[in-house]
Amino acid sequence: MSIRIGILGYGNLGRGVEAAVAKNPDMELVGVFTRRDPSGVTIKTPGVSVYGADALETDEMKAGIDVLVICGGSATDLPHMTPKYAAMYNVIDSFDTHANIPVHFAAVDEAAKSAGKIAIISCGWDPGMFSLNRLYSDCILPDGAAYTFWGRGVSQGHSDAVRRIEGVADCRQYTIPVPEALDAVRSGSNPELTTRQKHTRECFVVAEEGADLERIEREIKTMHNYFDEYDTTVHFITAEEMKRDHSELPHGGFVIRTGSTGWENEHKHVIEYSLKLDSNPEFTGSVLTAFARAACRMNAEGMCGGKTVFDVAPAYLSAKSGEELRHTML
Amino acid sequence: MSIRIGILGYGNLGRGVEAAVAKNPDMELVGVFTRRDPSGVTIKTPGVSVYGADALETDEMKAGIDVLVICGGSATDLPHMTPKYAAMYNVIDSFDTHANIPVHFAAVDEAAKSAGKIAIISCGWDPGMFSLNRLYSDCILPDGAAYTFWGRGVSQGHSDAVRRIEGVADCRQYTIPVPEALDAVRSGSNPELTTRQKHTRECFVVAEEGADLERIEREIKTMHNYFDEYDTTVHFITAEEMKRDHSELPHGGFVIRTGSTGWENEHKHVIEYSLKLDSNPEFTGSVLTAFARAACRMNAEGMCGGKTVFDVAPAYLSAKSGEELRHTML
Repeated sequence: MSIRIGILGYGNLGRGVEAAVAKNPDMELVGVFTRRDPSGVTIKTPGVSVYGADALETDEMKAGIDVLVICGGSATDLPHMTPKYAAMYNVIDSFDTHANIPVHFAAVDEAAKSAGKIAIISCGWDPGMFSLNRLYSDCILPDGAAYTFWGRGVSQGHSDAVRRIEGVADCRQYTIPVPEALDAVRSGSNPELTTRQKHTRECFVVAEEGADLERIEREIKTMHNYFDEYDTTVHFITAEEMKRDHSELPHGGFVIRTGSTGWENEHKHVIEYSLKLDSNPEFTGSVLTAFARAACRMNAEGMCGGKTVFDVAPAYLSAKSGEELRHTML
Repeated sequence: MSIRIGILGYGNLGRGVEAAVAKNPDMELVGVFTRRDPSGVTIKTPGVSVYGADALETDEMKAGIDVLVICGGSATDLPHMTPKYAAMYNVIDSFDTHANIPVHFAAVDEAAKSAGKIAIISCGWDPGMFSLNRLYSDCILPDGAAYTFWGRGVSQGHSDAVRRIEGVADCRQYTIPVPEALDAVRSGSNPELTTRQKHTRECFVVAEEGADLERIEREIKTMHNYFDEYDTTVHFITAEEMKRDHSELPHGGFVIRTGSTGWENEHKHVIEYSLKLDSNPEFTGSVLTAFARAACRMNAEGMCGGKTVFDVAPAYLSAKSGEELRHTML
């Protein structure tokens, strides 16, 4: 029997989950749920309907959906959506406001436990796959240091921040790891790296006609919390160039842990995990979809409550049996 | 309370586990157990004794050891040792004869289940961490292809095979990934690669005095199953050079999965995991030690039976609480 998936929220991430569900033959999309007017939302999966979010409160949906993938924003959507729906469904989200994870986890855990459901929070690639690699490598090489680099990729938050500057019509901001910093980390020298030494930022900006470009560039480079601690390059481009060269949302990054073993730390080791992604939302959606399978299977075995990627035995992610996994992947 | 570890077998791997236990403050080495005469075995941990393997059958040891790490060979030791001791202890091994994993797993699973113990088999980096990365990336990018490369590193099996050639006093064989093959894989072109295209082999050979070097080189390069499908380079060196330049056991490798997402496969992604290890046995021992912690914790929660790395939720590997993990690593 297929795993029946619902998607709540149909922005970039929701579309990424929809595409990922289509790649997994053991899954079936039941519906997309939106807080917008459903009649204005067109999805890609043939034969599947769009519903208002209210429909999730009907017994029909509750009986017909195995896992609800919640594709909302971490700032204002997920803090109330995930606990709310964890009381009705197995759910999964990509909550990524690090400082608020304890509060979010507690709320979700309580709701899911009361309902006997599984709720996996903070799933994706960071938090998500990068977190897993930080954890595994920390446990294997306790005497070591871990480094996370992001990019080259589009940071939506930084792009939005630049767009709020007067005279800016559009912006795409790329975060770029500094190659020398990566090399220093890989060398095992355990360097202490400042924010400025780890990443640079590159902004492609479409200015409004007649705008003061020097002022815009200065305001970007000195923007507190976003750019002031980085070396930033600003390029002014046309709207046509923006559309032609910067319409995708690539991303990626590196988790590198170096550490030593032996009685005199005489042996050095480097564990490196990297992602190079053409589409951040589609990859994140693909991770959410794999963990949605796990949520369904874990709940079917009687587990419930709040979970993170740390709590999911990897075998649950796969449609293959334990025997098949041992045969083909071990 | 510390996790009390026993080590059975004190070769390179057993020594690696011993060194790893010393790096984990929540663990304590109870004893090293050997089938040799214990009086001839000197270990490095102060105050810890070496016992004959028979001592493992005493009630005192059974009560005093939380996890027994079995450091034997896959060919003849582990097939009987792991099931035998899984009937008495939580155990972990690094069984790596791929074709025999189903039989080994079944025997170990039965013994462990009957005894109410946990037995994790095939743990290390391959099988082990590489397997985990194959599994995670397969689940995230089902529409893709995975590639595993090994090296640059010493293959003990190949070194031993060369040593059996007449006139060879010593050999160290390095397996080396072909850079062009790695690049082709990373490009996302899903290349079909032959054995010869993926790896080369390099042998450093100390010949006996007066030996026919040409014959030795020919015998190496044409050796069935070991070298005939590879491009192999043979270097004859002195015993002094061998000792000076080739006394370590470095290894490593790459697991790379490329795949596509989107309705028209328009977005490509590359997931890459790599290891660069100064000491294969110490790193393998470090992985075994982390999973020994998991075995102990899982059994304390009532789980039992045969397991692989696929069945272990990552949080069990860490001495940190779930709350601490979410705070520091998610």
